[in-house]
Amino acid sequence: MEDHVIIPAGLLEEAVTVLLRALGLPGEEAEIVAGTLVDADLRGVGTHGVFRLKAYAERIIAGGLNPRAKISVVREAATTAVLDADNGFGQIAAYRAAQLAVEKAGQSGAAFIGVRNSSHFGRAGYFTEWIAGHDMIGFCVSNASPRLAPWGGRKKMLGNNPWSAAIPTGGEPIVLDMANSIAAAGKIRRAAQAGSAIPGGWALDLEGRETTDPLEALHGVLLPFGAHKGYGITLVAGILTGVLTGGVWDSQVTPLDEAGRPQQVSHLLAAARISDFMPAEEFKGRVDRIAAEIRMCPPAEGTSAVYVPGDRGREKRSAALRGGVPLAERTFRSLNDLADRLGVSLPEGWPGPNLKQA
Amino acid sequence: MEDHVIIPAGLLEEAVTVLLRALGLPGEEAEIVAGTLVDADLRGVGTHGVFRLKAYAERIIAGGLNPRAKISVVREAATTAVLDADNGFGQIAAYRAAQLAVEKAGQSGAAFIGVRNSSHFGRAGYFTEWIAGHDMIGFCVSNASPRLAPWGGRKKMLGNNPWSAAIPTGGEPIVLDMANSIAAAGKIRRAAQAGSAIPGGWALDLEGRETTDPLEALHGVLLPFGAHKGYGITLVAGILTGVLTGGVWDSQVTPLDEAGRPQQVSHLLAAARISDFMPAEEFKGRVDRIAAEIRMCPPAEGTSAVYVPGDRGREKRSAALRGGVPLAERTFRSLNDLADRLGVSLPEGWPGPNLKQA
Repeated sequence: MEDHVIIPAGLLEEAVTVLLRALGLPGEEAEIVAGTLVDADLRGVGTHGVFRLKAYAERIIAGGLNPRAKISVVREAATTAVLDADNGFGQIAAYRAAQLAVEKAGQSGAAFIGVRNSSHFGRAGYFTEWIAGHDMIGFCVSNASPRLAPWGGRKKMLGNNPWSAAIPTGGEPIVLDMANSIAAAGKIRRAAQAGSAIPGGWALDLEGRETTDPLEALHGVLLPFGAHKGYGITLVAGILTGVLTGGVWDSQVTPLDEAGRPQQVSHLLAAARISDFMPAEEFKGRVDRIAAEIRMCPPAEGTSAVYVPGDRGREKRSAALRGGVPLAERTFRSLNDLADRLGVSLPEGWPGPNLKQA
Repeated sequence: MEDHVIIPAGLLEEAVTVLLRALGLPGEEAEIVAGTLVDADLRGVGTHGVFRLKAYAERIIAGGLNPRAKISVVREAATTAVLDADNGFGQIAAYRAAQLAVEKAGQSGAAFIGVRNSSHFGRAGYFTEWIAGHDMIGFCVSNASPRLAPWGGRKKMLGNNPWSAAIPTGGEPIVLDMANSIAAAGKIRRAAQAGSAIPGGWALDLEGRETTDPLEALHGVLLPFGAHKGYGITLVAGILTGVLTGGVWDSQVTPLDEAGRPQQVSHLLAAARISDFMPAEEFKGRVDRIAAEIRMCPPAEGTSAVYVPGDRGREKRSAALRGGVPLAERTFRSLNDLADRLGVSLPEGWPGPNLKQA
């Protein structure tokens, strides 16, 4: 395990906001992006958290990410719209699309909002939970640069397109939030750094052979979960985003680390109003009873508890809100380096660069 | 392999229609159900095909399935509706819901239609393909009687809830069509009949231990594809159907073989009009180019061809439309028995009861 620095969530969010403003983001937008990043860290999804700020900064500096993007409405009808994100932050574009989806579904019952010319947006569940907070079913999907092959193939053509669905409850929503590979690329990268093998079934090498070598896997393709099922899901996700919005298909999406080129990511957000089907309170009561029943399911051999999707992230968030966010030391240092580079001071209370905690 | 009788598709559809009419279905509805069943057999999905007619007949005779159901509209708004299927055929209810979804999305751009008090509906892809034929994205999901446990649990609480999404193309749609277990219950039942073991990872026994014994598996729970991911998908599928429509949740859905009790299955069908996003012809052209690119993907080790979801079913259908539908001999005999029991003659050209072909 890497060393971690423990930072109070509010302080971390403030620091990230300072850095994003220094990178050129308008005030409110810096707050939105910082909120989504820290929320991911709070839930233990560090791969979509503050860790990404370094890559975002590099993209802004190299010109691939527009911090002053002006989102425009390309098409609009009663239940649909297409937004052009002007190569800005995916978090801002997806949040605006979620707002528009809730507004339109609030009038018409249902809405589908497409976004094109966007960028990496972090954790899809952030946006669906926000929609579910308005007593609507929330759905969100994004495309991404190619990492997977069609099932049975060996050429990178499909993104590991993340998607999420959220269901309102009396408390916090039930949230599905997933990408479509068996193992995330980040996990394979960590195995490569540690010099350890990966399990069979995760990836193919460039020749289309199953490999346990993480470096071969990173050059080859990730395998989808559920074999042809995960492949089908990621293919449809790519069509609902890059194709339907008039953006580019997965195979033309620029990887996050090619900092100088716009990524041209596309998203689709959808909302469906519960009250068209039944009173929202009745629906949420029914879902609460089901969730309670599931959490009381007798466990299988080798497990101690049964969760509803979203539970574990919330447990982690509760702990981190009390005890602070465990930030990998490398990420902590990258924030300090970025502050130096941008010539800004991190907020009062920010730990000194040599302060290390377990 | 079981022996098969080869029957021309048109003749099979005619025979099934005759039997459904004799069971009490009005003319047009008998044709719709027969069309969906034979279509499943044509695509090689025999588990959702004519094989099911025996169980449907038993349900009608025992009173659990209403052949003269009158579907009613319980709620209706611009983009949504809830139908009560009056315990009739799921195929009829889902088809009516798909029609209403297309009608509403044709006016408003998007529609979500719920159905409750329905029954087994066969192959979900039938309905999404029909929607896609109207230049709309089609989505369909149904709940089902409990077969899976929540991930980490050992108690049957969740249905193996089938779902489908279809995307229009210049030719036939791209169709995802899946349930959420790694292996279908039918496959495990066949292993039990053959006295052979099943692979590890498919199922848990009653005590929540992984089992390779098909009988223990049938008493226990099926495992979802993609572990917690497939669990999450099937949970959300159950909420979008049994909860959102005001029907019953998975754990209260009656299994198909309890013939005397209404199943109380729920469905949700959705449609989103392409032309709100871009001209439908442009969209379909883009999808066609992507599908062509995918089919040309260099194959991985051990595979010879790369398919787009829906391709293989269509290949089988083309072959079966030319050469006839291969019907398991047992299914063939069950049709003859049913005709005897109902006192009807099967159409001219129907093979004699002793005619057996390879």
